[in-house]
Parts: sequence; C-alpha cells; structure tokens
Amino acid sequence: MLIKSQVKYIQSLSQKKFRDEENAFVAEGPKIINELSGASNVELLHLYAMKKWMVENEALVAANVSGKITEIKDNDLERISFLQTPNQVVGIFKKPSFGRPSFEHKISLLLDGIQDPGNIGTIMRTADWFGVENIICSKESADVFNPKTVQSTMGSISRVQVIYEDLITFISAHPGIPVYATALGGKDLFEVNGVTEGFILIGNESKGISKSLLDLSPHRVTIPKRGEAESLNAAVAAGIALAHLSRI
Amino acid sequence: MLIKSQVKYIQSLSQKKFRDEENAFVAEGPKIINELSGASNVELLHLYAMKKWMVENEALVAANVSGKITEIKDNDLERISFLQTPNQVVGIFKKPSFGRPSFEHKISLLLDGIQDPGNIGTIMRTADWFGVENIICSKESADVFNPKTVQSTMGSISRVQVIYEDLITFISAHPGIPVYATALGGKDLFEVNGVTEGFILIGNESKGISKSLLDLSPHRVTIPKRGEAESLNAAVAAGIALAHLSRI
Repeated sequence: MLIKSQVKYIQSLSQKKFRDEENAFVAEGPKIINELSGASNVELLHLYAMKKWMVENEALVAANVSGKITEIKDNDLERISFLQTPNQVVGIFKKPSFGRPSFEHKISLLLDGIQDPGNIGTIMRTADWFGVENIICSKESADVFNPKTVQSTMGSISRVQVIYEDLITFISAHPGIPVYATALGGKDLFEVNGVTEGFILIGNESKGISKSLLDLSPHRVTIPKRGEAESLNAAVAAGIALAHLSRI
Repeated sequence: MLIKSQVKYIQSLSQKKFRDEENAFVAEGPKIINELSGASNVELLHLYAMKKWMVENEALVAANVSGKITEIKDNDLERISFLQTPNQVVGIFKKPSFGRPSFEHKISLLLDGIQDPGNIGTIMRTADWFGVENIICSKESADVFNPKTVQSTMGSISRVQVIYEDLITFISAHPGIPVYATALGGKDLFEVNGVTEGFILIGNESKGISKSLLDLSPHRVTIPKRGEAESLNAAVAAGIALAHLSRI
C-alpha cells in the first residue's frame, strides 16, 4: 500500500534539484534493480515491488527486510513509474559512492554539453564497455541521474564515475594529460595510435565542442566520412573514438 | 487555416499501415524540411508552415506555389506535430525512390529486429556518414518512416535505401557476399581487415542476432570489451563495426 507522501517523494526525484538534495535517484525494472542491488557502492533506500517480482526475488527481499520494501499493486506502480511501460519494481537508491578519481595512465571522457538524457546514458554504457572509469561533464550537460538516463545506462551508473565540472578549469588543472577532441578538420582518428593516457572530448549534439575548449588547442581527431551525413550522433561518435583510441 | 480532414490525414500517418497505403511520411522542422525539399528523389506532397518560416524560406515557397503550402498558426502546428516541441513547419513527403540496389563491391547493413525507432534512425545516419547505400531490415524491425525515426535520421532518409525482407531468404539469395555478424565470442573486430564487400549484421537490442541467422554461419566479429557493461547499444555497435570494416 502506497501512501501519498511516498508518491510525492518519488515524483520529486524526477527533478535534479531534489535528487541533489536527497543524494538519491530512481531506477526501474527487474534487470537494473537486481544489478544495482548487487553493487557494493550503491545503497538501496527503498523498493516498491509487485508481488510477482517479490516471489521471484525472495533472496533479495529477505536481505532487505528492515522496512525497505513495500508491496504495491498495478495501479500504484503506474502512479510512481517514469516508464511508458512500468515494469514490476521501482527502486530508490543513494547515488553511488566512488573513490577519488585519477586520470593518469588511462583514458577518460569529457562531455561538453550533451543534452539528451538517452545519449548521456548510452555514452556511459559505452564507456563502461571499454573500461573507462571517469566521465567529466560540463555543468550544462544533462544529469546522469535523470530517470531516463538511469534506464539507458543499463547498470553502468554504478561503475562509471561522473563528475560535473567547468571543463576549461578541469583541463587546465591536468596540463600533463593530452586532450583528443572529436571535431571536423582534425587528424584521421585511425592514424592516432598508442594512446594510453588522455581525455576524449565529445561535443554537444548540435553545436559540437565549444570554441573556448577548442581554443585550448587539444589534438583534433576526425572520424573519416565517406558519405553525406552532416554529423554523427554523439554517442556513436564517442563509441567509435573510444573503440579505436582505447586499443592497447 | 487547417481543415479537419487535413489534421486527420496527418495524424493517420503516425501509423505504418497508412504510411504504406499512402506511400507517404511526415518530417518536421526547418532543417530536415529544407534538406528533403532539396533531395531529387523525394517528392513534396504538402507543407504546413508558420508565417515566420515562410518568410525565411521565400525561394522554397515560391517553387511550391501550386497549392502545396498551407500557412498555419501556432495552435494548428500543435495539432499536427508529432514533436514534443513543434518546430515551425510540418511536411508530408512521398517516400524516397531509389534505383535497384546492388550489393557487390560495397558494404551494406543487415538489421535483425531493431525495435527502437530512435536506434534505427541513428543507424541510418551512421550508415550515411560511412557511405553505406543499403540497409536491409528484417520484417519485424521498426519502420524507418515512423515520425520519430525520420527526425533522428537527420535527412539521411533520402540517401540510404531501406529494404524490409526476410533476412534468411535475403542472405541465401546472395551466397557470394560474406556476412559479418556482430556477436559475442567471435573474432576481434579489429583483426578483420580489408573488407571491401559484405553485409554487417546487427542484432536486436536485447536478444541480439536470432539463432537461425547465426546458424547460417556468418563470420562472427566481436567488439573487444575491456570493462563490465553487458552489451553495447545497437547503434553504437553498428557505428564501431562500420567505422572499422569500411576503412579502405
């Protein structure tokens, strides 16, 4: 049984302001709930689950008996879900905790104003595939704890650390680490080899990388174009750049 | 001024059945409308545009005087737009016409059950970037003329031919052309070089490539994983495979 204040609390977490205040976020559906529940750096705050899910996840339910699970009905689920097709279970989690990030001897991603929550989630999942530990987002980028983003990360949200920073300040604070900016008019990406340390910089979906960042004169790399499309989707570009540059 | 039957007609084009019957689709916003209006293989059927757009696109308007443009107001636009944020102009176009496709001496894409309209549009845009002329989709794949897909193709819809076919029949009909299936447990993608002819096969978002297709024993290629994510987004995987395999 759901009470009104619970519904209100969950709904408030669709807003970044409340997620930040509460240091919490929402995830939904059996797959991501199971993955997050097993992550050592993500604390479960509360689960709202349908009977079916509870029966199928007895062990998980038993491990969280202390008032952390509320059984709900179909119509309750619809009231609290952010999905078009609600899926059995909604979880509230504390944002994952990570150690102090380091950027030496590894590749990290810099995102300059990625706006689409789905894109930022897909980039996070791609980063996780290639073993990238850190993503640094400019402050105007979409929030990774947006419910839509959480869903599109497919659980990578517990493994990849995301930091919101002014990118000019950030790059200036790490002068020894090369920046590879994916932009037009640069060196053919496939001619850049043997990168073992660096930041790969991806620009905004429509405006690309801001001029002030390009003026810091990073290495420009270009994904060679053989057809007519004006640009690539930001997540696809990030995937192609990472797949090549992170090869050992 | 919009009349009721026009609104109804446009709304009907959100359904595949009507798009097929009418051989028509909807595109929205200045950028894609301008791009499609300039494409020689796409016939404009009708434009519904706000005054602002008409003033800024005088030449285009003048070239289409013969009853093909209706000036509309803000609230009309909202009634016919499929976008969350309607954008000045809605166009109805005939589906693009293409010549008979050939698959020799080039790389084409095969999509096995891609379900997300945004994914299929992003794959089309990526294909267009790499000069791929043809995409063959299994019959249960999402329709590329879905309004959401059209928007995410960014105009590539006029340049890349999409064919819906039973993929087993299709592959059997082209026995001389190698199939590269992106799947787990295959050869490292980056060790496959010098592909100048072939089909790159991409699987469904959650189920991957169907067993019956894998049983046709294509060359399996795997994007090397260095982290923890369970899978890559289908459009990202297609981009990485295309970027590498289509290198000359």
